[in-house]
Amino acid sequence: MARFVTIGERIHCISPTIREAMANRDPAPILKRAKEQIDAGATYLDVNIGPAENGGEELMKWAVQLIQDNFDNHPLCLDTANSKAIEAGLSVYNPVRGKAIVNSADAGDRIGNIDLAADNGAICFALCSKAGVPSDNDERMACCQELLERGMEKGMDPEDLWFDPLFLVIKGMQDKQMEVLEFIKMCSDMGFKTTGGLSNVSNGMPKLIRPIIDSATVAMAMMNGLTSAIVNPCDLRLMETIKSCDVIRGETLYADSYLEL
Amino acid sequence: MARFVTIGERIHCISPTIREAMANRDPAPILKRAKEQIDAGATYLDVNIGPAENGGEELMKWAVQLIQDNFDNHPLCLDTANSKAIEAGLSVYNPVRGKAIVNSADAGDRIGNIDLAADNGAICFALCSKAGVPSDNDERMACCQELLERGMEKGMDPEDLWFDPLFLVIKGMQDKQMEVLEFIKMCSDMGFKTTGGLSNVSNGMPKLIRPIIDSATVAMAMMNGLTSAIVNPCDLRLMETIKSCDVIRGETLYADSYLEL
Repeated sequence: MARFVTIGERIHCISPTIREAMANRDPAPILKRAKEQIDAGATYLDVNIGPAENGGEELMKWAVQLIQDNFDNHPLCLDTANSKAIEAGLSVYNPVRGKAIVNSADAGDRIGNIDLAADNGAICFALCSKAGVPSDNDERMACCQELLERGMEKGMDPEDLWFDPLFLVIKGMQDKQMEVLEFIKMCSDMGFKTTGGLSNVSNGMPKLIRPIIDSATVAMAMMNGLTSAIVNPCDLRLMETIKSCDVIRGETLYADSYLEL
Repeated sequence: MARFVTIGERIHCISPTIREAMANRDPAPILKRAKEQIDAGATYLDVNIGPAENGGEELMKWAVQLIQDNFDNHPLCLDTANSKAIEAGLSVYNPVRGKAIVNSADAGDRIGNIDLAADNGAICFALCSKAGVPSDNDERMACCQELLERGMEKGMDPEDLWFDPLFLVIKGMQDKQMEVLEFIKMCSDMGFKTTGGLSNVSNGMPKLIRPIIDSATVAMAMMNGLTSAIVNPCDLRLMETIKSCDVIRGETLYADSYLEL
Protein backbone atom coordinates (compact mmCIF):
# COMPACT_ATOMS: atom_id res chain seq x y z
CA MET A 1 0.00 0.00 0.00
CA ALA A 2 1.31 3.44 -0.93
CA ARG A 3 -0.40 6.34 0.73
CA PHE A 4 -0.84 9.60 -1.14
CA VAL A 5 2.17 11.90 -0.69
CA THR A 6 1.32 15.46 0.35
CA ILE A 7 3.90 18.18 -0.21
CA GLY A 8 3.27 21.23 1.96
CA GLU A 9 3.41 24.42 -0.10
CA ARG A 10 3.52 27.05 2.64
CA ILE A 11 7.26 27.75 2.85
CA HIS A 12 7.20 29.90 -0.24
CA CYS A 13 8.94 33.21 -0.87
CA ILE A 14 5.74 34.57 -2.42
CA SER A 15 4.58 35.06 1.18
CA PRO A 16 5.93 38.38 2.49
CA THR A 17 6.60 36.83 5.92
CA ILE A 18 8.65 34.01 4.45
CA ARG A 19 10.45 36.26 1.98
CA GLU A 20 11.54 38.54 4.78
CA ALA A 21 12.58 35.62 6.98
CA MET A 22 14.67 34.22 4.14
CA ALA A 23 16.28 37.60 3.45
CA ASN A 24 17.16 38.09 7.12
CA ARG A 25 17.95 34.45 7.85
CA ASP A 26 15.33 34.62 10.57
CA PRO A 27 14.46 31.03 11.57
CA ALA A 28 11.26 31.63 13.56
CA PRO A 29 8.67 32.25 10.76
CA ILE A 30 10.04 29.36 8.72
CA LEU A 31 10.07 26.93 11.63
CA LYS A 32 6.55 28.00 12.56
CA ARG A 33 5.20 27.16 9.11
CA ALA A 34 7.21 23.95 9.00
CA LYS A 35 5.70 22.83 12.30
CA GLU A 36 2.16 23.74 11.29
CA GLN A 37 2.45 21.71 8.10
CA ILE A 38 4.13 18.71 9.72
CA ASP A 39 1.49 18.71 12.46
CA ALA A 40 -1.19 18.80 9.74
CA GLY A 41 0.29 15.67 8.19
CA ALA A 42 2.45 16.88 5.28
CA THR A 43 4.66 14.05 4.05
CA TYR A 44 7.12 16.49 2.48
CA LEU A 45 7.71 20.22 2.85
CA ASP A 46 8.36 22.29 -0.24
CA VAL A 47 11.04 24.95 0.21
CA ASN A 48 10.52 27.60 -2.44
CA ILE A 49 13.18 30.29 -2.45
CA GLY A 50 12.05 31.83 -5.75
CA PRO A 51 14.42 32.60 -8.64
CA ALA A 52 17.18 33.26 -6.08
CA GLU A 53 19.68 34.43 -8.65
CA ASN A 54 21.91 36.01 -6.02
CA GLY A 55 22.93 34.03 -2.99
CA GLY A 56 20.53 31.20 -3.76
CA GLU A 57 23.05 28.48 -2.95
CA GLU A 58 23.72 29.83 0.49
CA LEU A 59 20.03 30.43 1.16
CA MET A 60 18.90 26.94 0.13
CA LYS A 61 21.60 25.32 2.26
CA TRP A 62 20.56 27.42 5.23
CA ALA A 63 16.85 26.60 4.80
CA VAL A 64 17.42 22.86 4.30
CA GLN A 65 19.62 22.57 7.35
CA LEU A 66 17.37 24.77 9.46
CA ILE A 67 14.29 22.63 8.80
CA GLN A 68 15.98 19.24 8.88
CA ASP A 69 17.89 20.05 12.08
CA ASN A 70 14.74 21.14 13.84
CA PHE A 71 12.36 18.47 12.57
CA ASP A 72 14.26 15.20 12.71
CA ASN A 73 15.36 15.33 9.05
CA HIS A 74 11.84 15.75 7.70
CA PRO A 75 11.86 15.10 3.91
CA LEU A 76 12.03 18.19 1.70
CA CYS A 77 11.30 19.29 -1.82
CA LEU A 78 13.80 21.86 -3.13
CA ASP A 79 12.03 24.43 -5.23
CA THR A 80 13.76 27.17 -7.23
CA ALA A 81 14.54 28.09 -10.81
CA ASN A 82 18.21 28.28 -9.77
CA SER A 83 19.76 24.84 -10.40
CA LYS A 84 22.93 25.74 -8.52
CA ALA A 85 20.82 26.45 -5.46
CA ILE A 86 19.13 23.06 -5.76
CA GLU A 87 22.53 21.41 -6.07
CA ALA A 88 23.74 23.25 -2.98
CA GLY A 89 20.64 22.17 -1.06
CA LEU A 90 21.14 18.54 -2.09
CA SER A 91 24.74 18.68 -0.85
CA VAL A 92 23.56 19.19 2.74
CA TYR A 93 20.29 17.20 2.55
CA ASN A 94 19.88 14.19 4.81
CA PRO A 95 17.76 11.49 3.06
CA VAL A 96 17.33 9.26 6.11
CA ARG A 97 13.54 9.82 6.17
CA GLY A 98 12.99 10.16 2.43
CA LYS A 99 14.81 11.07 -0.77
CA ALA A 100 15.03 14.76 -1.59
CA ILE A 101 12.75 16.03 -4.35
CA VAL A 102 14.05 18.34 -7.10
CA ASN A 103 11.26 20.77 -8.04
CA SER A 104 11.38 20.75 -11.01
CA ALA A 105 12.54 19.68 -14.44
CA ASP A 106 10.59 20.30 -17.63
CA ALA A 107 11.08 19.16 -21.23
CA GLY A 108 12.54 22.54 -22.15
CA ASP A 109 15.27 24.67 -20.58
CA ARG A 110 15.08 22.93 -17.25
CA ILE A 111 15.56 19.34 -18.42
CA GLY A 112 19.04 19.36 -16.87
CA ASN A 113 17.47 19.23 -13.42
CA ILE A 114 16.84 15.54 -14.08
CA ASP A 115 20.60 14.99 -14.19
CA LEU A 116 20.89 16.79 -10.87
CA ALA A 117 18.33 14.44 -9.32
CA ALA A 118 19.94 11.38 -10.91
CA ASP A 119 23.42 12.33 -9.67
CA ASN A 120 22.16 12.87 -6.12
CA GLY A 121 19.74 9.97 -5.65
CA ALA A 122 16.81 12.37 -5.56
CA ILE A 123 13.25 12.26 -6.88
CA CYS A 124 12.52 14.72 -9.69
CA PHE A 125 9.25 16.46 -10.52
CA ALA A 126 8.95 16.27 -14.29
CA LEU A 127 6.67 18.96 -15.68
CA CYS A 128 5.12 17.69 -18.91
CA SER A 129 5.64 20.96 -20.70
CA LYS A 130 8.31 22.57 -22.81
CA ALA A 131 7.41 26.24 -22.56
CA GLY A 132 4.19 27.37 -20.96
CA VAL A 133 0.91 25.50 -20.97
CA PRO A 134 0.85 22.33 -23.12
CA SER A 135 -1.79 22.62 -25.82
CA ASP A 136 -3.12 19.08 -25.35
CA ASN A 137 -2.33 15.62 -24.01
CA ASP A 138 -0.34 14.66 -27.10
CA GLU A 139 2.06 17.45 -26.24
CA ARG A 140 2.08 16.41 -22.58
CA MET A 141 2.85 12.83 -23.56
CA ALA A 142 5.65 13.85 -25.92
CA CYS A 143 7.20 15.83 -23.05
CA CYS A 144 6.70 12.90 -20.70
CA GLN A 145 8.65 10.65 -23.07
CA GLU A 146 11.53 13.11 -23.42
CA LEU A 147 11.74 13.45 -19.66
CA LEU A 148 11.58 9.70 -19.17
CA GLU A 149 14.32 9.07 -21.74
CA ARG A 150 16.57 11.62 -20.10
CA GLY A 151 16.02 9.99 -16.73
CA MET A 152 16.66 6.50 -18.09
CA GLU A 153 19.89 7.65 -19.80
CA LYS A 154 21.06 8.91 -16.43
CA GLY A 155 20.19 5.63 -14.74
CA MET A 156 17.19 6.83 -12.77
CA ASP A 157 14.49 4.50 -11.50
CA PRO A 158 11.25 5.55 -13.28
CA GLU A 159 9.63 5.55 -9.82
CA ASP A 160 11.73 8.63 -9.06
CA LEU A 161 10.26 10.68 -11.88
CA TRP A 162 6.96 12.15 -10.74
CA PHE A 163 5.13 13.52 -13.77
CA ASP A 164 3.26 16.79 -13.43
CA PRO A 165 0.41 17.35 -15.93
CA LEU A 166 0.30 21.07 -15.04
CA PHE A 167 -2.98 21.70 -13.26
CA LEU A 168 -4.78 24.63 -14.90
CA VAL A 169 -6.91 27.38 -13.44
CA ILE A 170 -10.66 26.81 -13.75
CA LYS A 171 -11.32 30.52 -14.09
CA GLY A 172 -10.20 30.84 -17.67
CA MET A 173 -9.48 27.22 -18.52
CA GLN A 174 -12.56 25.36 -17.31
CA ASP A 175 -12.77 23.39 -20.55
CA LYS A 176 -9.27 21.92 -20.00
CA GLN A 177 -9.92 20.31 -16.60
CA MET A 178 -10.98 16.86 -17.80
CA GLU A 179 -8.01 16.69 -20.16
CA VAL A 180 -5.57 17.25 -17.29
CA LEU A 181 -7.31 14.56 -15.26
CA GLU A 182 -7.25 12.24 -18.25
CA PHE A 183 -3.48 12.72 -18.55
CA ILE A 184 -3.07 11.61 -14.95
CA LYS A 185 -4.91 8.42 -15.87
CA MET A 186 -2.66 7.87 -18.88
CA CYS A 187 0.42 8.19 -16.64
CA SER A 188 -1.11 5.96 -13.99
CA ASP A 189 -2.02 3.27 -16.54
CA MET A 190 1.64 3.22 -17.60
CA GLY A 191 2.67 2.76 -13.97
CA PHE A 192 4.09 6.25 -13.48
CA LYS A 193 3.85 8.41 -10.42
CA THR A 194 2.25 11.82 -10.72
CA THR A 195 2.16 15.11 -8.86
CA GLY A 196 1.33 18.76 -9.39
CA GLY A 197 0.39 22.13 -7.97
CA LEU A 198 -3.20 21.25 -7.22
CA SER A 199 -4.31 24.61 -5.87
CA ASN A 200 -3.70 26.15 -9.30
CA VAL A 201 -7.20 25.00 -10.21
CA SER A 202 -8.88 27.32 -7.71
CA ASN A 203 -6.65 30.33 -8.29
CA GLY A 204 -8.63 33.56 -8.22
CA MET A 205 -11.72 32.01 -6.64
CA PRO A 206 -13.26 33.39 -3.43
CA LYS A 207 -11.36 32.12 -0.38
CA LEU A 208 -14.25 30.08 0.98
CA ILE A 209 -14.68 28.16 -2.25
CA ARG A 210 -11.06 27.13 -2.75
CA PRO A 211 -11.01 24.21 -0.27
CA ILE A 212 -14.25 22.92 -1.78
CA ILE A 213 -13.10 22.89 -5.38
CA ASP A 214 -9.58 21.73 -4.43
CA SER A 215 -11.09 18.78 -2.54
CA ALA A 216 -13.33 17.81 -5.44
CA THR A 217 -10.35 18.04 -7.79
CA VAL A 218 -8.03 15.93 -5.65
CA ALA A 219 -10.65 13.18 -5.29
CA MET A 220 -11.24 13.07 -9.04
CA ALA A 221 -7.48 13.08 -9.67
CA MET A 222 -6.96 10.31 -7.11
CA MET A 223 -9.61 8.23 -8.89
CA ASN A 224 -7.38 8.58 -11.94
CA GLY A 225 -4.28 7.49 -10.05
CA LEU A 226 -2.68 10.72 -8.81
CA THR A 227 -0.02 9.68 -6.28
CA SER A 228 0.99 13.03 -4.79
CA ALA A 229 0.35 16.76 -4.91
CA ILE A 230 1.71 20.07 -3.70
CA VAL A 231 -1.00 21.30 -1.36
CA ASN A 232 -1.80 23.39 1.66
CA PRO A 233 -1.85 20.68 4.34
CA CYS A 234 -3.51 23.12 6.73
CA ASP A 235 -6.62 22.91 4.52
CA LEU A 236 -8.52 20.44 6.70
CA ARG A 237 -11.17 19.61 4.12
CA LEU A 238 -8.53 18.78 1.54
CA MET A 239 -6.58 16.53 3.91
CA GLU A 240 -9.78 14.75 5.00
CA THR A 241 -10.59 14.14 1.34
CA ILE A 242 -7.13 12.77 0.59
CA LYS A 243 -7.30 10.41 3.58
CA SER A 244 -10.79 9.28 2.52
CA CYS A 245 -9.68 8.58 -1.04
CA ASP A 246 -6.73 6.59 0.33
CA VAL A 247 -9.27 4.46 2.22
CA ILE A 248 -11.43 4.01 -0.90
CA ARG A 249 -8.36 3.12 -3.00
CA GLY A 250 -7.36 0.62 -0.33
CA GLU A 251 -4.07 2.39 0.41
CA THR A 252 -4.91 2.61 4.11
CA LEU A 253 -7.09 0.27 6.11
CA TYR A 254 -10.31 1.83 7.31
CA ALA A 255 -10.69 2.52 11.02
CA ASP A 256 -13.21 4.91 12.60
CA SER A 257 -10.17 6.97 13.62
CA TYR A 258 -8.64 7.16 10.13
CA LEU A 259 -8.93 10.95 9.92
CA GLU A 260 -6.80 11.34 13.02
CA LEU A 261 -3.95 9.19 11.75
CA MET B 1 -24.44 19.80 -20.66
CA ALA B 2 -26.14 17.37 -18.30
CA ARG B 3 -25.91 18.20 -14.64
CA PHE B 4 -25.67 15.43 -12.09
CA VAL B 5 -29.09 14.23 -10.96
CA THR B 6 -29.58 14.05 -7.19
CA ILE B 7 -32.40 11.92 -5.82
CA GLY B 8 -33.32 12.89 -2.26
CA GLU B 9 -33.53 9.84 -0.01
CA ARG B 10 -35.24 11.29 3.04
CA ILE B 11 -38.87 10.30 2.42
CA HIS B 12 -38.27 6.75 3.54
CA CYS B 13 -40.43 4.56 5.71
CA ILE B 14 -37.35 3.45 7.65
CA SER B 15 -37.70 6.78 9.47
CA PRO B 16 -40.21 6.39 12.33
CA THR B 17 -41.62 9.87 11.63
CA ILE B 18 -42.26 9.07 7.98
CA ARG B 19 -43.57 5.58 8.68
CA GLU B 20 -46.10 6.99 11.10
CA ALA B 21 -47.09 9.78 8.73
CA MET B 22 -47.63 7.22 5.97
CA ALA B 23 -49.69 4.96 8.23
CA ASN B 24 -51.90 7.87 9.36
CA ARG B 25 -51.96 9.67 6.01
CA ASP B 26 -50.58 12.69 7.84
CA PRO B 27 -49.25 15.13 5.21
CA ALA B 28 -47.21 17.47 7.41
CA PRO B 29 -44.06 15.37 8.11
CA ILE B 30 -43.85 14.28 4.48
CA LEU B 31 -44.31 17.78 3.08
CA LYS B 32 -41.69 19.08 5.53
CA ARG B 33 -39.07 16.64 4.31
CA ALA B 34 -40.04 17.22 0.71
CA LYS B 35 -39.55 20.97 1.13
CA GLU B 36 -36.22 20.59 2.91
CA GLN B 37 -34.88 18.42 0.12
CA ILE B 38 -36.23 20.56 -2.71
CA ASP B 39 -34.78 23.67 -1.04
CA ALA B 40 -31.45 21.86 -0.76
CA GLY B 41 -31.46 21.27 -4.51
CA ALA B 42 -32.68 17.69 -4.96
CA THR B 43 -33.56 17.08 -8.62
CA TYR B 44 -35.84 14.14 -7.72
CA LEU B 45 -37.42 12.96 -4.48
CA ASP B 46 -37.43 9.26 -3.69
CA VAL B 47 -40.68 8.04 -2.13
CA ASN B 48 -39.92 4.82 -0.30
CA ILE B 49 -43.00 3.16 1.18
CA GLY B 50 -41.21 -0.09 2.07
CA PRO B 51 -42.52 -3.56 1.14
CA ALA B 52 -46.09 -2.18 1.44
CA GLU B 53 -47.73 -5.54 0.94
CA ASN B 54 -51.06 -4.31 2.28
CA GLY B 55 -52.55 -1.13 0.94
CA GLY B 56 -49.41 -0.19 -0.96
CA GLU B 57 -51.31 0.92 -4.04
CA GLU B 58 -53.46 3.35 -2.13
CA LEU B 59 -50.50 4.63 -0.12
CA MET B 60 -48.26 5.27 -3.13
CA LYS B 61 -51.04 7.12 -4.96
CA TRP B 62 -51.65 9.25 -1.89
CA ALA B 63 -47.95 10.08 -1.47
CA VAL B 64 -47.35 10.88 -5.15
CA GLN B 65 -50.35 13.18 -5.35
CA LEU B 66 -49.58 14.81 -2.01
CA ILE B 67 -46.05 15.77 -3.03
CA GLN B 68 -46.80 16.67 -6.63
CA ASP B 69 -49.84 18.77 -5.71
CA ASN B 70 -47.87 20.73 -3.14
CA PHE B 71 -44.62 21.17 -5.05
CA ASP B 72 -45.58 22.02 -8.60
CA ASN B 73 -45.31 18.43 -9.86
CA HIS B 74 -41.74 17.94 -8.62
CA PRO B 75 -40.28 14.77 -10.23
CA LEU B 76 -40.40 11.62 -8.12
CA CYS B 77 -38.79 8.23 -7.84
CA LEU B 78 -41.23 5.49 -6.77
CA ASP B 79 -39.52 3.10 -4.41
CA THR B 80 -41.06 -0.12 -3.12
CA ALA B 81 -40.75 -3.88 -3.54
CA ASN B 82 -44.48 -3.91 -4.39
CA SER B 83 -44.80 -3.60 -8.18
CA LYS B 84 -48.55 -3.03 -7.98
CA ALA B 85 -47.90 -0.01 -5.77
CA ILE B 86 -45.43 1.39 -8.30
CA GLU B 87 -47.97 0.86 -11.05
CA ALA B 88 -50.61 2.65 -8.98
CA GLY B 89 -48.20 5.54 -8.35
CA LEU B 90 -47.40 5.82 -12.05
CA SER B 91 -51.12 6.01 -12.86
CA VAL B 92 -51.44 9.32 -11.00
CA TYR B 93 -47.93 10.68 -11.68
CA ASN B 94 -47.61 13.93 -13.63
CA PRO B 95 -44.44 13.88 -15.78
CA VAL B 96 -44.57 17.56 -16.78
CA ARG B 97 -41.31 18.33 -14.96
CA GLY B 98 -39.56 15.00 -15.46
CA LYS B 99 -40.32 11.34 -16.16
CA ALA B 100 -41.11 9.18 -13.14
CA ILE B 101 -38.40 6.81 -11.96
CA VAL B 102 -39.18 3.18 -11.10
CA ASN B 103 -36.93 2.10 -8.20
CA SER B 104 -36.00 -0.55 -9.06
CA ALA B 105 -35.56 -3.52 -11.36
CA ASP B 106 -32.82 -6.11 -10.98
CA ALA B 107 -31.74 -9.04 -13.17
CA GLY B 108 -33.56 -11.46 -10.89
CA ASP B 109 -37.11 -11.54 -9.51
CA ARG B 110 -37.67 -7.86 -10.10
CA ILE B 111 -36.80 -7.71 -13.81
CA GLY B 112 -40.50 -7.19 -14.60
CA ASN B 113 -40.28 -3.66 -13.22
CA ILE B 114 -38.56 -2.73 -16.48
CA ASP B 115 -41.79 -3.56 -18.32
CA LEU B 116 -43.64 -1.31 -15.91
CA ALA B 117 -41.31 1.56 -16.70
CA ALA B 118 -41.46 0.88 -20.44
CA ASP B 119 -45.26 0.77 -20.46
CA ASN B 120 -45.50 4.06 -18.59
CA GLY B 121 -42.77 6.15 -20.21
CA ALA B 122 -40.73 6.07 -17.00
CA ILE B 123 -37.04 5.81 -16.21
CA CYS B 124 -36.00 2.56 -14.51
CA PHE B 125 -33.18 2.00 -12.03
CA ALA B 126 -31.53 -1.24 -13.12
CA LEU B 127 -29.65 -2.90 -10.30
CA CYS B 128 -26.80 -4.95 -11.77
CA SER B 129 -27.45 -7.89 -9.51
CA LYS B 130 -29.53 -11.05 -9.58
CA ALA B 131 -29.69 -11.94 -5.90
CA GLY B 132 -27.62 -10.13 -3.31
CA VAL B 133 -24.19 -8.65 -3.86
CA PRO B 134 -22.61 -9.39 -7.25
CA SER B 135 -19.35 -11.25 -6.80
CA ASP B 136 -17.43 -9.20 -9.39
CA ASN B 137 -17.78 -6.91 -12.40
CA ASP B 138 -18.24 -9.83 -14.80
CA GLU B 139 -21.40 -10.68 -12.91
CA ARG B 140 -22.44 -7.00 -12.85
CA MET B 141 -21.92 -6.76 -16.60
CA ALA B 142 -23.88 -9.95 -17.30
CA CYS B 143 -26.78 -8.51 -15.29
CA CYS B 144 -26.42 -5.19 -17.10
CA GLN B 145 -26.79 -6.96 -20.44
CA GLU B 146 -29.87 -8.89 -19.34
CA LEU B 147 -31.47 -5.69 -18.10
CA LEU B 148 -30.58 -3.84 -21.27
CA GLU B 149 -31.99 -6.59 -23.49
CA ARG B 150 -35.24 -6.61 -21.54
CA GLY B 151 -35.53 -2.84 -21.89
CA MET B 152 -34.76 -2.97 -25.62
CA GLU B 153 -37.35 -5.69 -26.17
CA LYS B 154 -39.90 -3.44 -24.55
CA GLY B 155 -38.91 -0.50 -26.71
CA MET B 156 -37.18 1.57 -24.04
CA ASP B 157 -34.62 4.24 -24.85
CA PRO B 158 -31.32 3.03 -23.25
CA GLU B 159 -31.09 6.54 -21.75
CA ASP B 160 -34.00 5.59 -19.52
CA LEU B 161 -32.19 2.66 -17.94
CA TRP B 162 -29.96 3.96 -15.16
CA PHE B 163 -27.59 1.19 -14.10
CA ASP B 164 -26.82 0.75 -10.43
CA PRO B 165 -23.52 -1.00 -9.61
CA LEU B 166 -24.64 -1.54 -5.99
CA PHE B 167 -22.46 0.62 -3.80
CA LEU B 168 -20.97 -1.48 -0.99
CA VAL B 169 -20.24 -0.65 2.62
CA ILE B 170 -16.59 0.21 3.34
CA LYS B 171 -16.81 -1.30 6.81
CA GLY B 172 -16.66 -4.92 5.70
CA MET B 173 -16.09 -4.52 1.98
CA GLN B 174 -13.28 -1.99 1.73
CA ASP B 175 -11.47 -4.10 -0.84
CA LYS B 176 -14.45 -3.93 -3.24
CA GLN B 177 -14.66 -0.14 -3.53
CA MET B 178 -12.44 0.32 -6.57
CA GLU B 179 -14.26 -2.46 -8.40
CA VAL B 180 -17.60 -0.70 -7.96
CA LEU B 181 -16.07 2.55 -9.22
CA GLU B 182 -14.52 0.71 -12.15
CA PHE B 183 -17.93 -0.67 -13.10
CA ILE B 184 -19.30 2.87 -13.27
CA LYS B 185 -16.51 3.67 -15.73
CA MET B 186 -17.36 0.61 -17.83
CA CYS B 187 -21.00 1.74 -18.02
CA SER B 188 -20.00 5.31 -18.76
CA ASP B 189 -17.61 4.24 -21.54
CA MET B 190 -20.54 2.42 -23.14
CA GLY B 191 -22.63 5.59 -22.94
CA PHE B 192 -24.95 4.38 -20.19
CA LYS B 193 -26.33 6.40 -17.32
CA THR B 194 -25.64 5.26 -13.78
CA THR B 195 -27.01 5.73 -10.30
CA GLY B 196 -26.96 4.11 -6.88
CA GLY B 197 -27.44 4.37 -3.16
CA LEU B 198 -24.27 6.26 -2.47
CA SER B 199 -24.57 6.51 1.29
CA ASN B 200 -24.30 2.71 1.53
CA VAL B 201 -20.52 3.19 1.47
CA SER B 202 -20.45 4.98 4.82
CA ASN B 203 -23.00 2.79 6.59
CA GLY B 204 -22.03 2.16 10.20
CA MET B 205 -19.43 4.92 10.30
CA PRO B 206 -19.50 7.67 12.95
CA LYS B 207 -21.98 10.39 11.98
CA LEU B 208 -19.34 13.09 11.55
CA ILE B 209 -17.34 11.00 9.10
CA ARG B 210 -20.18 10.04 6.76
CA PRO B 211 -20.39 13.34 4.81
CA ILE B 212 -16.60 13.26 4.39
CA ILE B 213 -16.38 9.76 2.97
CA ASP B 214 -19.60 10.17 0.95
CA SER B 215 -18.18 13.32 -0.65
CA ALA B 216 -14.89 11.63 -1.53
CA THR B 217 -16.82 8.71 -3.01
CA VAL B 218 -19.14 10.82 -5.13
CA ALA B 219 -16.22 12.81 -6.56
CA MET B 220 -14.35 9.64 -7.48
CA ALA B 221 -17.53 8.14 -8.96
CA MET B 222 -18.20 11.34 -10.94
CA MET B 223 -14.68 11.16 -12.35
CA ASN B 224 -15.70 7.75 -13.66
CA GLY B 225 -18.90 9.08 -15.20
CA LEU B 226 -21.59 8.60 -12.53
CA THR B 227 -24.62 10.58 -13.71
CA SER B 228 -26.88 10.44 -10.64
CA ALA B 229 -27.17 9.11 -7.11
CA ILE B 230 -29.66 8.63 -4.31
CA VAL B 231 -28.33 10.93 -1.61
CA ASN B 232 -29.19 13.08 1.36
CA PRO B 233 -29.43 16.50 -0.32
CA CYS B 234 -29.34 18.15 3.11
CA ASP B 235 -25.70 17.02 3.40
CA LEU B 236 -24.15 20.35 2.45
CA ARG B 237 -20.64 19.00 1.93
CA LEU B 238 -21.92 16.35 -0.44
CA MET B 239 -23.95 18.81 -2.49
CA GLU B 240 -21.00 21.23 -2.66
CA THR B 241 -18.85 18.38 -3.93
CA ILE B 242 -21.36 17.36 -6.58
CA LYS B 243 -21.67 20.96 -7.82
CA SER B 244 -17.87 21.28 -7.90
CA CYS B 245 -17.45 18.07 -9.88
CA ASP B 246 -20.09 19.31 -12.32
CA VAL B 247 -17.94 22.43 -12.82
CA ILE B 248 -14.80 20.32 -13.32
CA ARG B 249 -16.59 18.01 -15.76
CA GLY B 250 -17.82 21.08 -17.62
CA GLU B 251 -21.50 20.29 -17.00
CA THR B 252 -22.08 23.73 -15.50
CA LEU B 253 -20.26 26.92 -16.28
CA TYR B 254 -18.14 28.22 -13.43
CA ALA B 255 -19.26 31.38 -11.66
CA ASP B 256 -18.14 32.53 -8.21
CA SER B 257 -21.74 31.93 -7.15
CA TYR B 258 -21.93 28.35 -8.46
CA LEU B 259 -22.54 26.84 -5.02
CA GLU B 260 -25.66 28.95 -4.57
CA LEU B 261 -27.26 27.87 -7.83
